[in-house]
Amino acid sequence: LGILVSSVVIILHSNYEILCVRCSRRTSNTLAYRCEHCGGILQVRINKDFSVKDIIKEEYSLWRYRNFYPYINEDSIISLGEGLTPHIKFSKDLYLKLEYMNPTGSFKDRGSSVLISAIKELIGPETFIAEDSSGNAGASIAAYAAFAEIRAQIYVPENVSGRKFEQIRAYGAEITKVSGERVKITEEAMKQERNKVYIGHVYHPIFRDGIRTLAYEIYEQLGFKAPEIIFLPVSAGTLLMGVIDGFVHLKESDAIEALPRIIACQTEQVSPLYHALKGREYKPKKKIKSIADALISTDPPLLEPMIEKMKRIDGDAVIVNEREILEAYWKLAKKGIFIEPSSAVAYAGYQKYEGKRKNAVVILTGNGLKTELLSKK
Amino acid sequence: LGILVSSVVIILHSNYEILCVRCSRRTSNTLAYRCEHCGGILQVRINKDFSVKDIIKEEYSLWRYRNFYPYINEDSIISLGEGLTPHIKFSKDLYLKLEYMNPTGSFKDRGSSVLISAIKELIGPETFIAEDSSGNAGASIAAYAAFAEIRAQIYVPENVSGRKFEQIRAYGAEITKVSGERVKITEEAMKQERNKVYIGHVYHPIFRDGIRTLAYEIYEQLGFKAPEIIFLPVSAGTLLMGVIDGFVHLKESDAIEALPRIIACQTEQVSPLYHALKGREYKPKKKIKSIADALISTDPPLLEPMIEKMKRIDGDAVIVNEREILEAYWKLAKKGIFIEPSSAVAYAGYQKYEGKRKNAVVILTGNGLKTELLSKK
Repeated sequence: LGILVSSVVIILHSNYEILCVRCSRRTSNTLAYRCEHCGGILQVRINKDFSVKDIIKEEYSLWRYRNFYPYINEDSIISLGEGLTPHIKFSKDLYLKLEYMNPTGSFKDRGSSVLISAIKELIGPETFIAEDSSGNAGASIAAYAAFAEIRAQIYVPENVSGRKFEQIRAYGAEITKVSGERVKITEEAMKQERNKVYIGHVYHPIFRDGIRTLAYEIYEQLGFKAPEIIFLPVSAGTLLMGVIDGFVHLKESDAIEALPRIIACQTEQVSPLYHALKGREYKPKKKIKSIADALISTDPPLLEPMIEKMKRIDGDAVIVNEREILEAYWKLAKKGIFIEPSSAVAYAGYQKYEGKRKNAVVILTGNGLKTELLSKK
Repeated sequence: LGILVSSVVIILHSNYEILCVRCSRRTSNTLAYRCEHCGGILQVRINKDFSVKDIIKEEYSLWRYRNFYPYINEDSIISLGEGLTPHIKFSKDLYLKLEYMNPTGSFKDRGSSVLISAIKELIGPETFIAEDSSGNAGASIAAYAAFAEIRAQIYVPENVSGRKFEQIRAYGAEITKVSGERVKITEEAMKQERNKVYIGHVYHPIFRDGIRTLAYEIYEQLGFKAPEIIFLPVSAGTLLMGVIDGFVHLKESDAIEALPRIIACQTEQVSPLYHALKGREYKPKKKIKSIADALISTDPPLLEPMIEKMKRIDGDAVIVNEREILEAYWKLAKKGIFIEPSSAVAYAGYQKYEGKRKNAVVILTGNGLKTELLSKK
């Protein structure tokens, strides 16, 4: 029996690897959020081709792609119906991918569903998971932990308020308020404690890996084709990296001939990736004040891997100002598409971008009900 | 050519009828919201069997059932991705149908999408549609009108506030505030004016007919079976009547052997249907004050047809009090299901119901982000 069990383990593991983007060493610990050797960022790699016949067509959530998640045990899936969000034609050359129609109102639910499903069995009744976010990720992790009946501790800034925090409380998560800068909150959440497992969404490779499904969906919803260009908002980088990974997987599987051009959309104030890609120095203001209040990562831990990935695939970036964001927000709302201001950054980026933008997709990430209605000026 | 055109019309019309529930007279006017002869409520009837092979499986919205909407021209479809909402297993004998995951956060989007698609071609640039609702229906109609580029005038109470009203404004609808009781707002919206078309969701037969898709989805998502029992909140009655129509259609098409038992869930304060079905007198308080603030129809225009339909299918009803609603709201939120308090009435009804309730579905109608978070007591 011992031999049987270990050979099963080997078969499962051969379909994927979790490896460090810096030192390339592997780990088999699905709870690890950074390299145990060098502290580097971890990345999941799937050693199995994407194939249309492996899509489970009768499953109307992102779990229709579960055959491409070899580390998930089917019986452990925690699903609130995330994914398979609408992909609607908005104008002749533009589709909108409505990620705000996920269970908690943002694309983060893809990451949460896959991550919580992957680790659920490893979290005993005494153990709790720790996440640092007072925004969409915090609300999403709180919801999936609640559904999985896992204790969740969400670390938030001392002066937190707003509807996303309300959502975190609704899901019954435990809250720890931390004073000081953003990085302090992460440090506090990461601090080793008895029975605590840090699963911070920015770091955890499996959270990011869940977002890969978004690429598969765009491909499937376009009739098994890639678009020519995709616009998406970038802050911490989980969305960007997940979407790139998905399309690279499709390309390496010969499902598509060419990668779509990926355009990272950032605000003038918070744009480290844009500046890095354009070879310009980035000096953020001490105090960020933008209507795009979910895009706050002036110094994202994933910056290096983001730059590396974007250069490899010849991605581009665009920045938009407050007026352009507000205009995009209202333009979409008045067409029946109500999103949070931070999500309007991607559409503003699309409108501003000067390159060729035919056959485009804009990813709209968060629900307009999550923030107070902005005034028109 | 004249002959050709009129024979096409005849073919289209033979698949459905719009008839008065009181005098049984037919109309071919898809803009009519009540019988032109006797003022009675209108009802759509489909003269085409439901058949699994006619589902358009590659369409991931309620428009997968468009073959059962013979009055819709495919090129006129106005879709924001409504329908095909998740249907998740919550416990051994209970599924939840997550209707709050529609584009504007409520089941009303089914009605709006079908209604606006049906009438779009009849609304010229000078014409505007009128709806009376400061809640989910108002927000939903506003969104679909915006997407269809139709002018919408939404009639609301003078003292309106809250997030649903915010949503109506976001979609750019024109607003008319009306002082006085609820019925005054309807009267004002119905008042005949130049270029105005009243499409009030409570009256309009095509709005209600869109909700029929919800029955098809439950059936399909249960593997082409009907559940034994369904719990849903009832106020104006559009949800109830639409769901019954859908299951009756499935039954008449021999797709299911027996209808599910339909349980109308109401609040103690607002429960005209419950009282009628139980043969008890209903005297609402002058001033309704409930956390279920979307369930306000103490004297619904659809009451008679609701009673008639419920008696015909042997439906039942249950009422719940404020404490039970609050408990249901928190119980679901702490399991990752965040809905508005009015929607918790259905789950409270499920918990309270004393009949057999195996193989049950509870329909959860509105998103929790649409109302402020309730305190726990």
